[in-house]
Amino acid sequence: MYRDKTCGELSLSDAGSKTRIAGWVQRVRKMGGMTFIDVRDRYGITQVVFNTEINPELQEVANQLGREFVVEISGTVKERDSKNPNLETGEIEIIADNVKVLNRSEIPPFTIEEKTDGGDDLRMKYRYLDLRRPNVRRNLELRHKMAFEIRRYLDSKGFLEIETPILVKSTPEGARDFVVPSRMNPGEFYALPQSPQLFKQLLMVSGYDRYFQIAKCFRDEDLRADRQPEFTQIDCEMSFVEQEDVIDMFEGLVKHIFKYVKGIDFTEPFPRMTWNDAMRLYGSDKPDIRFGMPFVELNDVAKGVGFSVIDDAELVVGIVADGCASYTRKQIDALTDFVKRPQVGAKGLIWVKFEADGSIKSSVAKFYTPEQLQAWGEKAGAKPGDMLLVMTGDAMKVRKQLCELRLELGNELGLRDKNVFAPLWVVDFPLFEWDEETQRYYAMHHPFTSPNPADIPLLKTDTGKVRATAYDIVVNGTELGGGSIRIHDAELQDQMFELLGFTPERAQEQFGFLMNAFKYGAPPHGGLALGFDRFVSILAGLDSIRDVIAFPKNNSGRDVMNESPSPIDDAQLEELQLKLDIKD
Amino acid sequence: MYRDKTCGELSLSDAGSKTRIAGWVQRVRKMGGMTFIDVRDRYGITQVVFNTEINPELQEVANQLGREFVVEISGTVKERDSKNPNLETGEIEIIADNVKVLNRSEIPPFTIEEKTDGGDDLRMKYRYLDLRRPNVRRNLELRHKMAFEIRRYLDSKGFLEIETPILVKSTPEGARDFVVPSRMNPGEFYALPQSPQLFKQLLMVSGYDRYFQIAKCFRDEDLRADRQPEFTQIDCEMSFVEQEDVIDMFEGLVKHIFKYVKGIDFTEPFPRMTWNDAMRLYGSDKPDIRFGMPFVELNDVAKGVGFSVIDDAELVVGIVADGCASYTRKQIDALTDFVKRPQVGAKGLIWVKFEADGSIKSSVAKFYTPEQLQAWGEKAGAKPGDMLLVMTGDAMKVRKQLCELRLELGNELGLRDKNVFAPLWVVDFPLFEWDEETQRYYAMHHPFTSPNPADIPLLKTDTGKVRATAYDIVVNGTELGGGSIRIHDAELQDQMFELLGFTPERAQEQFGFLMNAFKYGAPPHGGLALGFDRFVSILAGLDSIRDVIAFPKNNSGRDVMNESPSPIDDAQLEELQLKLDIKD
Repeated sequence: MYRDKTCGELSLSDAGSKTRIAGWVQRVRKMGGMTFIDVRDRYGITQVVFNTEINPELQEVANQLGREFVVEISGTVKERDSKNPNLETGEIEIIADNVKVLNRSEIPPFTIEEKTDGGDDLRMKYRYLDLRRPNVRRNLELRHKMAFEIRRYLDSKGFLEIETPILVKSTPEGARDFVVPSRMNPGEFYALPQSPQLFKQLLMVSGYDRYFQIAKCFRDEDLRADRQPEFTQIDCEMSFVEQEDVIDMFEGLVKHIFKYVKGIDFTEPFPRMTWNDAMRLYGSDKPDIRFGMPFVELNDVAKGVGFSVIDDAELVVGIVADGCASYTRKQIDALTDFVKRPQVGAKGLIWVKFEADGSIKSSVAKFYTPEQLQAWGEKAGAKPGDMLLVMTGDAMKVRKQLCELRLELGNELGLRDKNVFAPLWVVDFPLFEWDEETQRYYAMHHPFTSPNPADIPLLKTDTGKVRATAYDIVVNGTELGGGSIRIHDAELQDQMFELLGFTPERAQEQFGFLMNAFKYGAPPHGGLALGFDRFVSILAGLDSIRDVIAFPKNNSGRDVMNESPSPIDDAQLEELQLKLDIKD
Repeated sequence: MYRDKTCGELSLSDAGSKTRIAGWVQRVRKMGGMTFIDVRDRYGITQVVFNTEINPELQEVANQLGREFVVEISGTVKERDSKNPNLETGEIEIIADNVKVLNRSEIPPFTIEEKTDGGDDLRMKYRYLDLRRPNVRRNLELRHKMAFEIRRYLDSKGFLEIETPILVKSTPEGARDFVVPSRMNPGEFYALPQSPQLFKQLLMVSGYDRYFQIAKCFRDEDLRADRQPEFTQIDCEMSFVEQEDVIDMFEGLVKHIFKYVKGIDFTEPFPRMTWNDAMRLYGSDKPDIRFGMPFVELNDVAKGVGFSVIDDAELVVGIVADGCASYTRKQIDALTDFVKRPQVGAKGLIWVKFEADGSIKSSVAKFYTPEQLQAWGEKAGAKPGDMLLVMTGDAMKVRKQLCELRLELGNELGLRDKNVFAPLWVVDFPLFEWDEETQRYYAMHHPFTSPNPADIPLLKTDTGKVRATAYDIVVNGTELGGGSIRIHDAELQDQMFELLGFTPERAQEQFGFLMNAFKYGAPPHGGLALGFDRFVSILAGLDSIRDVIAFPKNNSGRDVMNESPSPIDDAQLEELQLKLDIKD
């Protein structure tokens, strides 16, 4: 061992004792005859003092130290004259009597500080230095702690963590698979799993009753800002359960994590909302309910005055911005510009200000009398001092647009505090999604999702109306995860495949082994999966999952630190019996 | 929920209460007017009784149940007349008042019992049924428990579990990589990691101080009986440590697991043996020290009588088989046949019996006087009643052959009890291995292994003699894992690469990012990795790791259950810009 203590553990009670620490030089300050070195390790920072009057040679060694040098320092712990209350070890310092340079360092390409001068690309290239920054380190510490507490909770509930394979069978349905050529089986490929879905259902057939796994999953998608080709999922499944049992169990998990990791105690059940309500009231299947501002539909009070923007719209819908009657022209223009951005895509924004003095101002004042606008306000529940913002158009589209506006306003008004957490279950999802392009239904979750038993009679007659026994958990407007009760009845499963346009052959080819397994006594079962990267990033108060992954890839799926992916030797290709076939 | 109790939890104290269980039909016994159904779930088996006098319709339903049907049964708990002490729930039974068939089952292709009639191939094809067998289930329960306890121990010691990527950079050195074509980077490939070695060393450079991960690793090797293309490793690394610190920490881990999983308390430090002694005394770098029978070298007492088999041999070496002077001709012939098998490859076996009456019998009696053979016995420490078995030849070869014989004898004499565990550290491994074929040195562990500081002066002059700061942990003759102190000094690392025949360019190309990282303050560090599958199989008393993996692959790397690997669509290949190039 190169140390007796870490840089985070010395305190006043150690004063007078001999000690030895090791770590990285955070900074060197020379002040007259004294040199102060801050030595850093994972656990903290300890100040070391060199005094020219006591040991000029040693001080000279200290003066030669550069940032990020690795040192082993022996000395005596002493109470500081001027204490630093911001530092755990701020009451003491070490009077050095020996310094050993364990390793030198070149000057790092950016500062190793919480607020660094390094840009994104540079930090990713030197990720091993970026990882030294205390905020990045805290994210990975949080991730460890969360994984540990997740396991502790699930173990205590009788769940078994069972590893399922990474080299699996490719299924062309769904997202694109990463594939792995098999040298021993030329012309054949494994796939990397998009999730352990089939395996966890097999484990239920096998009687494992309660399964979980913190599992790596893979998706070869064109990467959006916050997607990674490999990500981590908390994957769970239970037998002999109904929706309520699954929700109870995993609400318990989420509460456990908030309690033991963040010290936040949720004593009430999480609220629930049907998918229909979520879409109608927030224009999203993952509403941020840290704040209100629900949608108000105004068709009945707004239509019929001959104003075509409103009369021709399928839906007229608004939100009330509390206390925003004072918004200036410029502020309103900014909101209008926001909804007109191509990412939102609205044509415009109607506003109605209900002034404190009872008067009404509006962008549509020339089409409506104050009394008519007053009726809008009453419908919407606007108080004097509030502003009503209204959008119009095709119902599903305008809801999505208004959703964006609501979130933007929430940000502007400071209603989306990262230290406030508002979990929500969204339930009663539709079982199917209609795709205009291919003119067929797709499974909204996956083809094994059970219909709501009450809706089974509708499967053939009113397919689009069938509700799934599926549920999502949403925190602060982000989907943390979701799941469903699965179909355990072979006939119902066949019916689902048929509705989804699978021929029996295709279904057999892709899911044959699961369907065969179901012939030998499949129990009723269901489960859920939570995005682990996302879960950590929510608790860390971060927008991106990249910051909670030790070695993330960039938007082209590249690790710029080790330059992968990379070309491989011809001999490797030959062994795999493959040839490149590059088009330009 | 389809049940109030599991099939493992009812006891006498529940007698008289109403209950509801769910599970699989293990067996149906009809006895006169009664039908007995054993219902099984993960937690146990509960007997359910149907009585024609009480409810003939219900009994008829019960009579229709087949093996592995899934049922939900309600009834009243009753004390049994004839208790079954072999069953947790053997004091009670349920008098059924309702049965719901939740799912039917075809007749399973083999019996779902500890001792099944299903052959290996059939069980692998229907792995989901094989997994129902109680012994297989116990293996996976053990695996879960071990993983949980490993994490509990390492967390308590301040280790952080940090996930490293599965899509990494291919390095043609070492074993063969599985590769993954990158669609977004045509012509380029990721590799699946053979271990997180480079990443864990980077994490030390990043100051994480104590890292671990229960990590999936991959190797595209021709599979031997007990190899899997994907396997799981307990991967660990620590900073500011020396060999003694690493050994202490992970001896603690192994002791923790034995204590909390098997209830075995190792109070003494694990024994240690140098690699040289292990080879000299047991002919193996992973000796099984559950029993003695160390090698005795007999060159000085055996050579020089003109018997060429002995005189021409580099090494004459034997073992004493306690009390085996009574071995018959047939038994000795069997041992001789054993060592002559091609897998062992010896030419023959010399035996000397030291009879209880003081007389000596031997296969080489015509070359040696009884006095000479007595001298062999004295050198070997043979007592009256013992037999000395001797082999001759090239030193390294004959040691391996004698090692096989020793293990075989250990089996025969019942000295290798699966319920006895004998851990051992093997230390002072050579740093290099000479390869005759390519006439160069290879790293015995990997190129980052630190030489023993005392041997650094020998690096250039006596390369083969340099000891590594490397250590293996062996249990019952199986290598559980191993590790080393790493080189943290860039110059020493350059020297290693040179000795291993890397050009600076090749070293840069393959390990450049690690070497660059080392320029920015690498701490002294070291670690180890334990084979998790192996660890579980040792504690389970199994010979194969396949039995502790939920969904293993066969010797051709195939999952016969889901028929993977499998061909992929042409469209998938085209997107990857690849072509098959199959030779026959």
